[in-house]
Amino acid sequence: MLEEDSLGVIHFNSMTYTAKTFNLPTLAGISEKQVAVHLALYEGYVKHVNLIMEKIAVLKSSDADGNAYIIAELRRRFGFEFDGMRMHEHYFSQFEGGPIPPTPGSALEQAVSRKYEDQGLEAHIREVAGSRGIGWVVVYADPSADTLHTVFVNDHELGTLAGLPVILALDLWEHAYMVDYVPAEKKNYIDAFFANINWGVVEKRFEVTT
Amino acid sequence: MLEEDSLGVIHFNSMTYTAKTFNLPTLAGISEKQVAVHLALYEGYVKHVNLIMEKIAVLKSSDADGNAYIIAELRRRFGFEFDGMRMHEHYFSQFEGGPIPPTPGSALEQAVSRKYEDQGLEAHIREVAGSRGIGWVVVYADPSADTLHTVFVNDHELGTLAGLPVILALDLWEHAYMVDYVPAEKKNYIDAFFANINWGVVEKRFEVTT
Amino acid sequence: MLEEDSLGVIHFNSMTYTAKTFNLPTLAGISEKQVAVHLALYEGYVKHVNLIMEKIAVLKSSDADGNAYIIAELRRRFGFEFDGMRMHEHYFSQFEGGPIPPTPGSALEQAVSRKYEDQGLEAHIREVAGSRGIGWVVVYADPSADTLHTVFVNDHELGTLAGLPVILALDLWEHAYMVDYVPAEKKNYIDAFFANINWGVVEKRFEVTT
Amino acid sequence: MLEEDSLGVIHFNSMTYTAKTFNLPTLAGISEKQVAVHLALYEGYVKHVNLIMEKIAVLKSSDADGNAYIIAELRRRFGFEFDGMRMHEHYFSQFEGGPIPPTPGSALEQAVSRKYEDQGLEAHIREVAGSRGIGWVVVYADPSADTLHTVFVNDHELGTLAGLPVILALDLWEHAYMVDYVPAEKKNYIDAFFANINWGVVEKRFEVTT
Repeated sequence: MLEEDSLGVIHFNSMTYTAKTFNLPTLAGISEKQVAVHLALYEGYVKHVNLIMEKIAVLKSSDADGNAYIIAELRRRFGFEFDGMRMHEHYFSQFEGGPIPPTPGSALEQAVSRKYEDQGLEAHIREVAGSRGIGWVVVYADPSADTLHTVFVNDHELGTLAGLPVILALDLWEHAYMVDYVPAEKKNYIDAFFANINWGVVEKRFEVTT
Repeated sequence: MLEEDSLGVIHFNSMTYTAKTFNLPTLAGISEKQVAVHLALYEGYVKHVNLIMEKIAVLKSSDADGNAYIIAELRRRFGFEFDGMRMHEHYFSQFEGGPIPPTPGSALEQAVSRKYEDQGLEAHIREVAGSRGIGWVVVYADPSADTLHTVFVNDHELGTLAGLPVILALDLWEHAYMVDYVPAEKKNYIDAFFANINWGVVEKRFEVTT
Repeated sequence: MLEEDSLGVIHFNSMTYTAKTFNLPTLAGISEKQVAVHLALYEGYVKHVNLIMEKIAVLKSSDADGNAYIIAELRRRFGFEFDGMRMHEHYFSQFEGGPIPPTPGSALEQAVSRKYEDQGLEAHIREVAGSRGIGWVVVYADPSADTLHTVFVNDHELGTLAGLPVILALDLWEHAYMVDYVPAEKKNYIDAFFANINWGVVEKRFEVTT
Repeated sequence: MLEEDSLGVIHFNSMTYTAKTFNLPTLAGISEKQVAVHLALYEGYVKHVNLIMEKIAVLKSSDADGNAYIIAELRRRFGFEFDGMRMHEHYFSQFEGGPIPPTPGSALEQAVSRKYEDQGLEAHIREVAGSRGIGWVVVYADPSADTLHTVFVNDHELGTLAGLPVILALDLWEHAYMVDYVPAEKKNYIDAFFANINWGVVEKRFEVTT
């Protein structure tokens, strides 16, 4: 993973992640400043995913045994940075293409109907969003059981369902809305989230899992 | 989700998970008693996944607003029980079919070679298994970046990589080996794990992600 | 804990916590709106500490065995709400009395000097405040070892040092500063924290531990 | 914290923790092998508390800025190792002096009576010990509110009550009993814990908090 060039400088040659750019329309109820602040935080996660991989490579290269404890603690933190990166990618890409309503009769709608019955998915997500603390409402598909699960994930990585594809992600960290709202107005932010979401993106994520 | 029958008894009609049975050979270095103890714990996770879903349904049905805080806390715990269930399923199914060595030139071997180079996957897993605390070594595929990640997940649900399929799962809770070994002999248990693993199962999991 | 009055209404008679009021001066660099938003969140923690105790009492009273799992999950969450309450009390009371500089030669200064040497406590706290994620920088005394420890506690309750008295608490949740600053300006908020802190409060907390 | 000797070797001179020795009687229902295995794990925590402090000192000394992320991640883990050390010290010292029943009319008994009423403390601890997962049942005093709290702390450091002194600690990691029992027999271990506890130690811890 590390190579020395002709000048004796060590290079880290492993794969690295690159911050994505999102083709975002103007959002109703979420300001441009809020989006800019949020995207900058996203880029911080990408940077730190790469940083962990690089630091581990350097520490292993110099003294794998002596640095074993340090390496293990960097690796233990990988989930925070990786999930911070990946969840934000799920989040922002949901706004691409502008607000599109759910497609009647879609595979997702049928799965929602079996799981959430009369409540429906949006109302169910709003219910889960009432959980205390910061984190994410995440809708997962469990293809092996032909069902959906909606949970509240603390931070980015605490309570994530193992191995399940993410269908929808609603960011409920305070940084996601506090440029525009105070915590007591969180409901307004959630309204804005649903006013802007492209359900086509969500439906497509679900379809590839089935 | 709840229905009252002709006798006035309330039934919970939602989907439930069923404990799987695993077609396990005799394992080298992992006793039958150890396996029996471990499977009983697995069944406890399945039971509690269903219990959370049932309790939420009952609480919502009786007083959704008054029980909102309770429901949210049950839902927050879902990841522990669900991941406890699902990770054990990944674990035990790796022993089905008996020990089979890795297939030379497989897609997994190529991905391992790009990521872990000379160290190889088994040695890398052994390194990560040196992390302190209880939990799992989990190998994930990230198809979007054509790479693998190996992390230590605390408990069952703390540090899980969001949305990534699980390729291999090594249980490092003390209950996984303490019928046969003391914690200072954890290495012997890991030896036994690798002596029994069917790499064909692992390779197949990887192939369906690509 | 529960009593039925003459009208058959059940009352919860256990001790409850009451939100404290803080005698806060005007703060430099932290707006009145920011303080008001933050105090309202503090009061939410007090409310939910009491709510958990009440819900547990009610559930136990109605069906202790049938509700055992629910009670356990409410109790598991107690640390989040309790620490959210208590840490905010440590935080706001540090501003009471207005900014007072450290007392030269105090017992705290001597302990700081042994532990943090030339760096000093403020610079050390600033270093720890660079940790990623949301939570608190907490300075603890360990009287049994005659030393201090400064750590980053995630959320309110993840990584708290067991049994150690809290000497200083710096809130690094985004809600603590995002009325006034964006996350990239967190340093300005930390400057404001130190511009307003009454070190006499901190010194007194330390003295009672020795 | 680091000094170079006349041979150019760097020494870490800060305070370090030393593993305590406990004057343990023969325990009923907890074997000598179990105790020996458990004490060895305790000593591992002491070693790693010191290791984190040393590694941070070395990394800071060599390149404080370049190592800032690594240092922060080591520091974030300090609570796990420190609480693992300290909680085991609370645990083992409860057996010193042999089994002594609670003192009628003690200050602790009065506090227990106000909080747990007819249930009593032992039965209440047994109830909390039914929580799922591994960790500790911890009884805390909150002197500022003249009350007790009993919670389940996950791992060693997740859910600890901030700043509260520890009155009693029951270890429910699997390593605490799996030399003698399987998880389904956890109740027998808890019986053994109560058969061996010196309540005088617990009462004394409580008295110094009031």
